Amino acid sequence: MLVVMKNVASAEEIEAVVGVIQEMGYDARPIPGGQRTAVGIIGNDGGIDAGRLQGLEGVLEVIPVTHPYKQVSREWQEEDTVVSLANGTSFGGSDIAVIAGPCAVESEPAILDIAHQLKEMGATVLRGGAFKPRTSPYSFQGLGLEGLKFLAKAREQTGLAIVAEALDPEGADLVAEYADIVQIGARNMQNYPLLRRAGRTGKPVLLKRGMSATIEEFLLAAEYVLAEGNPNVILCERGVRSFDTHTRNVLDLAAIPVVQSLSHLPMIADPSHGTGIRSMVTAMGRAAVAAGADGLIVEVHGDPPRALSDGAQSLYPDQFASLMVEIKVIAKAIARDVTAPLS
Amino acid sequence: MLVVMKNVASAEEIEAVVGVIQEMGYDARPIPGGQRTAVGIIGNDGGIDAGRLQGLEGVLEVIPVTHPYKQVSREWQEEDTVVSLANGTSFGGSDIAVIAGPCAVESEPAILDIAHQLKEMGATVLRGGAFKPRTSPYSFQGLGLEGLKFLAKAREQTGLAIVAEALDPEGADLVAEYADIVQIGARNMQNYPLLRRAGRTGKPVLLKRGMSATIEEFLLAAEYVLAEGNPNVILCERGVRSFDTHTRNVLDLAAIPVVQSLSHLPMIADPSHGTGIRSMVTAMGRAAVAAGADGLIVEVHGDPPRALSDGAQSLYPDQFASLMVEIKVIAKAIARDVTAPLS
Amino acid sequence: MLVVMKNVASAEEIEAVVGVIQEMGYDARPIPGGQRTAVGIIGNDGGIDAGRLQGLEGVLEVIPVTHPYKQVSREWQEEDTVVSLANGTSFGGSDIAVIAGPCAVESEPAILDIAHQLKEMGATVLRGGAFKPRTSPYSFQGLGLEGLKFLAKAREQTGLAIVAEALDPEGADLVAEYADIVQIGARNMQNYPLLRRAGRTGKPVLLKRGMSATIEEFLLAAEYVLAEGNPNVILCERGVRSFDTHTRNVLDLAAIPVVQSLSHLPMIADPSHGTGIRSMVTAMGRAAVAAGADGLIVEVHGDPPRALSDGAQSLYPDQFASLMVEIKVIAKAIARDVTAPLS
Amino acid sequence: MLVVMKNVASAEEIEAVVGVIQEMGYDARPIPGGQRTAVGIIGNDGGIDAGRLQGLEGVLEVIPVTHPYKQVSREWQEEDTVVSLANGTSFGGSDIAVIAGPCAVESEPAILDIAHQLKEMGATVLRGGAFKPRTSPYSFQGLGLEGLKFLAKAREQTGLAIVAEALDPEGADLVAEYADIVQIGARNMQNYPLLRRAGRTGKPVLLKRGMSATIEEFLLAAEYVLAEGNPNVILCERGVRSFDTHTRNVLDLAAIPVVQSLSHLPMIADPSHGTGIRSMVTAMGRAAVAAGADGLIVEVHGDPPRALSDGAQSLYPDQFASLMVEIKVIAKAIARDVTAPLS
Repeated sequence: MLVVMKNVASAEEIEAVVGVIQEMGYDARPIPGGQRTAVGIIGNDGGIDAGRLQGLEGVLEVIPVTHPYKQVSREWQEEDTVVSLANGTSFGGSDIAVIAGPCAVESEPAILDIAHQLKEMGATVLRGGAFKPRTSPYSFQGLGLEGLKFLAKAREQTGLAIVAEALDPEGADLVAEYADIVQIGARNMQNYPLLRRAGRTGKPVLLKRGMSATIEEFLLAAEYVLAEGNPNVILCERGVRSFDTHTRNVLDLAAIPVVQSLSHLPMIADPSHGTGIRSMVTAMGRAAVAAGADGLIVEVHGDPPRALSDGAQSLYPDQFASLMVEIKVIAKAIARDVTAPLS
Repeated sequence: MLVVMKNVASAEEIEAVVGVIQEMGYDARPIPGGQRTAVGIIGNDGGIDAGRLQGLEGVLEVIPVTHPYKQVSREWQEEDTVVSLANGTSFGGSDIAVIAGPCAVESEPAILDIAHQLKEMGATVLRGGAFKPRTSPYSFQGLGLEGLKFLAKAREQTGLAIVAEALDPEGADLVAEYADIVQIGARNMQNYPLLRRAGRTGKPVLLKRGMSATIEEFLLAAEYVLAEGNPNVILCERGVRSFDTHTRNVLDLAAIPVVQSLSHLPMIADPSHGTGIRSMVTAMGRAAVAAGADGLIVEVHGDPPRALSDGAQSLYPDQFASLMVEIKVIAKAIARDVTAPLS
Repeated sequence: MLVVMKNVASAEEIEAVVGVIQEMGYDARPIPGGQRTAVGIIGNDGGIDAGRLQGLEGVLEVIPVTHPYKQVSREWQEEDTVVSLANGTSFGGSDIAVIAGPCAVESEPAILDIAHQLKEMGATVLRGGAFKPRTSPYSFQGLGLEGLKFLAKAREQTGLAIVAEALDPEGADLVAEYADIVQIGARNMQNYPLLRRAGRTGKPVLLKRGMSATIEEFLLAAEYVLAEGNPNVILCERGVRSFDTHTRNVLDLAAIPVVQSLSHLPMIADPSHGTGIRSMVTAMGRAAVAAGADGLIVEVHGDPPRALSDGAQSLYPDQFASLMVEIKVIAKAIARDVTAPLS
Repeated sequence: MLVVMKNVASAEEIEAVVGVIQEMGYDARPIPGGQRTAVGIIGNDGGIDAGRLQGLEGVLEVIPVTHPYKQVSREWQEEDTVVSLANGTSFGGSDIAVIAGPCAVESEPAILDIAHQLKEMGATVLRGGAFKPRTSPYSFQGLGLEGLKFLAKAREQTGLAIVAEALDPEGADLVAEYADIVQIGARNMQNYPLLRRAGRTGKPVLLKRGMSATIEEFLLAAEYVLAEGNPNVILCERGVRSFDTHTRNVLDLAAIPVVQSLSHLPMIADPSHGTGIRSMVTAMGRAAVAAGADGLIVEVHGDPPRALSDGAQSLYPDQFASLMVEIKVIAKAIARDVTAPLS
């Protein structure tokens, strides 16, 4: 961390800064420059609270030089983390894994039907919400435990791994009991009790980037899971809030190579929430793979106009089948492959 | 809701839209125009899921005309909601109420000391975090239950009402047991299980606007609390995420008159988180009152450079005293007053 | 356009709205609904100023249903516009055209050298700034006319078409005299006198999206060029401003399919400005092609660390060569091809 | 400037960075730390191009420590700049100056009429657009030279100073011939040829913050004017782009104290464009004064529903009169005053 002093800062003000740094348990090294002095902090581990220094007299700004996250960082672990599931699907290796399914589990026949179709088309993980976070309290909130049981039945019949979202600490335990992956949604990216509990379940955690989370905040949220001793985090870019209303969000695909350079964790993309519009999903799914995503999570529904939630952004099954064909070609362009279909 | 058709939409496509609307249980009214047809939906209560229509063939866009929130709306209740506390403080009447205190409760002597000072200066509600949501898992996370007990002791000694944040459902019950107001922080604005539980405690809920929440999402979050039968919600603007790094957030003061025109709930402002910088807090606190805020929540610390969190944005006690003097004059300019100090 | 009335709007207020609409020369059609009345405006061409209605008594909001742009719209012209250059390169057909070159023309030998290399690697258009818009008045501002002459010489030697940016109306004439395409940069997207003059030169115009331009504003800026009788506009997504600082901008690739659905104009992407970081450029260039871009514009410099501007985002020549190889494979995945190299 | 190296950077990579810095003409000072080395650049004047360093091998990030602007900075000139007009109005002293008038000059009688009313109510500067930058090429574009003449006549009759916007370099000369202040609008904040020409007119320049300009970019735009030898720049916050659609922009009032701490130039606010909605203008005008603005610029129209542009955000004259009364009280709260009315 670097404390930059105003050019008019007095020697006393500089000394006071040095004093506070030492009181915090670190070494301080004043660096006189042409226009102003800066004070470097030596020996810190990235967890310093800048606030304590920012408000001191004579301080112009405090610049973090080290990053506050640790275990998620490539500086902590250089080789890629590969998250492996029981059915052989891996996230973070050379293969690109595809998760697909409806926004919400709506009924047993519907989820079983779409699961069989998706398996045929090459998805290896099934998504489906049992507990749905809805912006309005009056919208459909999911089937709950029953939904998890339908998902488990779909896994039994197809071999697909399953992922479902948890909304609160107890829900995390319940989801972990049934699903292969516990999902933390964008709205809950900074729900720390939920992150901790999901971490403690020991199951892989699929963590979506918050609506307006910086990449540093995103990695720090993952750090909460790793700090519980659970290394299996799959990160997911799902679009950030922006000013244009033509798409629901702006899918920030550059976050994929950025995160991959900063962290060893796998990073996938969600072109469905990232655009919110069916006709854009295929284009952005292809683009995510071309940008280097380690996987996709795509909403597919057997009958989108009748979907109970997110119908507008759900692909028809045949659109999903085309996407699978296209991304296989694109994966080759960057010397990767799409996970082989389950037999 | 208005479904706008493409100018090339066929009669069949328009009929299909009408059919889906009727299947959803509403009346559909096609409105032919110069360039294109639109289809109005009659008889809905604002809770329609646009997704089901957005993806239909021939649809250009779906425009919500009614709003999805109800009980929080001025169309539901015209007169202002006034949230009243046991010590006589009200939010939403003609008086402007001031909440002040440290970011976190750090020790019993520290919280008692600042509480006595703040009472002298005219604050009538004491803030202090017992459970702290921290971006890094390695930062100070609050004293927990002990912190709540220290706050309660401060109330006993001074008569100040107290507000503390809850991070998860069980925490909401605990906070409600000790505090006069349960706070839901910006990170948890869309943590629906938490909102429901906070609503069920029956205690007034201070709900902060999420980092990038639209005003509609903000009001819908409040709707979750009202939907539990709890009408006592105090809304709080605390800054939204933006692109400039000179301030921590952009304090969106226009949200105050906007919310007051859409909703009957009281709306206060947090100039401390809204700027993140001590030297801006006073200016923005004054501006919030001038913009019509029903109250302020301000971080004040007895010794900001030694604060365990948010030191950079905490006022010194004498700065807070000056702010109180200034806002009294400003309140007069708009025919309001600041809540009288406790005796 | 739809004028939505408050649910408490009186019959007189509704009549007043109807009166103003008629005074503006249009038909008004009140549409009574369950909760409120809306008033539709019939017979307008999309150019109505909402302001005149928005402030009337009883009006809740004014919702544009038609779009204010015309000639750029697919509803005006259904088939794709193809912008063709003298050397055979086309933008907007089935081939993907690649523009490459340094940020600024720095010297005659440097631009000639890189031009020959880029031609070998398959680019067919050469970029190079002669007039540079720099955030600081103290940065290198370009070689001016001399730079244009060096570009023309590079065209003479290699057959590459050339594109250069204009900063003001006279500059547009000068650039049009030498270059095949006149570029309007992001900072000038709403510089209307410049757009008009560029339009009047008759040369194709490469129009970059403004830093925070909505897609509607972007298309309206293009409309300024078409309104001068110049149909040859190439649109370019180059990243929009956002809150994270890891990349210079957020490259909004979904804008590609969105614009292509709304407009017949070709749309290319600039992964160099879109990321600002060399190591992200290749990934985002690939992603743009996968998303359906009609071309790329990429900064390549013979010796990036010595570049006088934008060195950090300029590719080394061999990195550009790899990108060309990869996008050829990706183009195949969507049944397109990259423009054949010049012989 | 500080070049932060990756923790795995080799000694050779660090040396290469030092070499490039020296080649650029500065001193380099490596600062070894606990986790990584940083290299400080000594002797630069803030105008360094970070790009040249950012892309070097082993570099993690380049952090600017000095700011690239100079003459606008408080470090260059500590005392406030006061911009004084012939009629006695000053911007930047202890008095708060108020500019008011219609968005566009529409006719001679209309501008004369409103000018007389505004003078009575206490405004001392009249605004009115003669050249209007309109998002659509089909909207009213202003009366041009004739509009300037009407403004000059209004000045003659009332004594009000006048301000009008220039859109291109020749327009700047024309506006300067007639008006007391040349305005550069938000869309043109980075139109550098226009900024230079406006600077060379010698007239005071009112510079509006761009739609998504950082404060650093805003100050650098002002630097273009000062670099032409013109010290009389009035900065203006007019709202920045954000994600909510309830207001046209987010008025970033914290930018007022931020700019005032970084620069000696006067800073005013435009609550009309900052909100876009008449009913919010008064609240935000008051808030701007409370936040410390050195003045206001407010749209007032004699008959807003009939305005040719921006009618929705224009105050009625009596609303403006109330605002003037309120801000006089608020000014007192911070020991300032509103400029005395012209006699």
